[in-house]
Amino acid sequence: MTINKAACIGGGVIGAGWVARLALNGIDVAIYDPDPEADRKVGEVLKGARRAYRKMLPDGLPKEGRITYAKTIAEAVADADLVQESVPERLELKHRVLAEIDAHAPSSAIVGSSTSGIKPTDMAVAMKQHPERLVVAHPFNPVYLLPLVEIVGGEQTWPEAIELAREHYAGIGMKPVVIRKEIEAFVGDRLLEAMWREALWLIKDGICTVEELDDIMRYSFGLRWAQMGMFQVYRIAGGEAGMRHFMAQFGPCLSWPWTKLMDVPEFNDELVDLIATQSDDQSDHWSIRELEKIRDDNLVAIMEALGKQNKGKGWGAGELHNDYTKKLSKLARKPKASKAAEKARATKPKKADKAKKK
Amino acid sequence: MTINKAACIGGGVIGAGWVARLALNGIDVAIYDPDPEADRKVGEVLKGARRAYRKMLPDGLPKEGRITYAKTIAEAVADADLVQESVPERLELKHRVLAEIDAHAPSSAIVGSSTSGIKPTDMAVAMKQHPERLVVAHPFNPVYLLPLVEIVGGEQTWPEAIELAREHYAGIGMKPVVIRKEIEAFVGDRLLEAMWREALWLIKDGICTVEELDDIMRYSFGLRWAQMGMFQVYRIAGGEAGMRHFMAQFGPCLSWPWTKLMDVPEFNDELVDLIATQSDDQSDHWSIRELEKIRDDNLVAIMEALGKQNKGKGWGAGELHNDYTKKLSKLARKPKASKAAEKARATKPKKADKAKKK
Repeated sequence: MTINKAACIGGGVIGAGWVARLALNGIDVAIYDPDPEADRKVGEVLKGARRAYRKMLPDGLPKEGRITYAKTIAEAVADADLVQESVPERLELKHRVLAEIDAHAPSSAIVGSSTSGIKPTDMAVAMKQHPERLVVAHPFNPVYLLPLVEIVGGEQTWPEAIELAREHYAGIGMKPVVIRKEIEAFVGDRLLEAMWREALWLIKDGICTVEELDDIMRYSFGLRWAQMGMFQVYRIAGGEAGMRHFMAQFGPCLSWPWTKLMDVPEFNDELVDLIATQSDDQSDHWSIRELEKIRDDNLVAIMEALGKQNKGKGWGAGELHNDYTKKLSKLARKPKASKAAEKARATKPKKADKAKKK
Repeated sequence: MTINKAACIGGGVIGAGWVARLALNGIDVAIYDPDPEADRKVGEVLKGARRAYRKMLPDGLPKEGRITYAKTIAEAVADADLVQESVPERLELKHRVLAEIDAHAPSSAIVGSSTSGIKPTDMAVAMKQHPERLVVAHPFNPVYLLPLVEIVGGEQTWPEAIELAREHYAGIGMKPVVIRKEIEAFVGDRLLEAMWREALWLIKDGICTVEELDDIMRYSFGLRWAQMGMFQVYRIAGGEAGMRHFMAQFGPCLSWPWTKLMDVPEFNDELVDLIATQSDDQSDHWSIRELEKIRDDNLVAIMEALGKQNKGKGWGAGELHNDYTKKLSKLARKPKASKAAEKARATKPKKADKAKKK
């Protein structure tokens, strides 16, 4: 199953990242976002994404999907195969938006929510018609480059919907991992949240600055985790005796008082100020746009480097990167669509022009 | 200050990694390890390290430092500038070993402990003569490739010792980060421990397998953290509004019940079995040695890729990698030592040969 048309509801950093990935795969995308600046903001993300994809595909990109801005959710989702919801993390807002999507999207459309933590069962209650096609499809920023998408079904989700979602997201170069049981924050954000909380304590207590903490991460385990996860890394660390040895050696440390686990730091203005000021010290000489470019270049370079490993087959995200760029290159070389399809396509922009004139 | 001779007390995975990094920098290393298999085990790590350095330095490696096995700690540390202690994490063992080191090492030698978590003040009590030169110098596996070393001083540590330690470790291609306040587990392991505990819960509760969890890490935030730490990544995620916006958006989640923070999973045989079995399913088709090679190749490739970024200046670990490989290449091209030095050196192996014949 390929996606012919997608709808993105919400055009923030995550929503715009979805728009970029989809459009760069040649898929038409309709966006709904009430922000009057949505067009400009999505445009900025798209510009960054095109730049990154040009690095990945020096011989040229596929023809981009058409991007349109809808005036209502109903208009955006009307003929979509995939509806991606990326609105702010407030349950009552999710409910309102999902009810609207459910009422107007084709019954066969998959509805994917980008939520970072809300359980699909808690969101599906708002979908009176087809709650069985709701999945959480939680991506990571930048969505157009990072391959992971966590797929989580709720109590009402059909297994077929999970399977179809997996195919849809794999079809646009992603790595779908289906989470076995529905829990809040799923897996990735649980891990991130645990580390983030500890990091805030370390800054608050003056053990290190945000720049020092960042350096500690990126000169050590960050390098490891770009290519193997913590369990495989620890398996190796166990040496010749492997995982059992590692567990025996480090397991008992779990009950030592090594982290602030019993306590959540108070989230007050003082802490926000401390972190924001230290973050300015670390990065203020670059604009966010410059940092985005550096990050994207680095990510592409890392995935390319991993693509050359394992006797040329690629390793982890590198192997996926090889498949993805091969697929996109093929798409870029594709002869033009049939005349009938071209004609059908050619009529659509006129409608959109008319709508704009109103 | 350069290191002329180093002593490594303990030749496990970490100790052997230190031996490899030091010897590959042309520094003579004396090892003390009571394990009768120490020679073979250190040899295996050295073989892996040489292989990785050949990838980094296609034009040849510097002349390796001489590696000797001492019969006692006293013998190993006798004329060392740097003594690196990497024995198991038991305080009473650390005390015994550090007392011995302190009694026999030159007073000017820096004593670095590889401990993952014990505070230097708690270790220094065993050093009756020169506790002022003890620092924690906590590296990350594989020590010969990953650049980070956390430097932590205790109550008795002199600032000059911290400065000298920083120079010593930077001199062998590392990234020393000095921790501002002494706490158990320092910074890196606090972060790792927080995530590890959460990961154990996710496996124990059947939310995902170790392979799925590893994939979730290495296809998403692992790729990010190889090049930027979590604070800089989140600064960018805040979009145009930056860090303050990000903190305002995600700060409140801290008090949501998203992680198992109030609880430590019981560390029983069942949990060890579950994880070891899943780890076998993930990696059993590779031996630990094969996995080590794959890991090392990937790490070298990532650092090289990052070395080409930022308009060729390199970024993060890539910039350091450029400096390090340049320095080692220069060392490899160095003309042979003076005749006198050569002669002095030439006499030593004979002694070793004699010793062996006994």
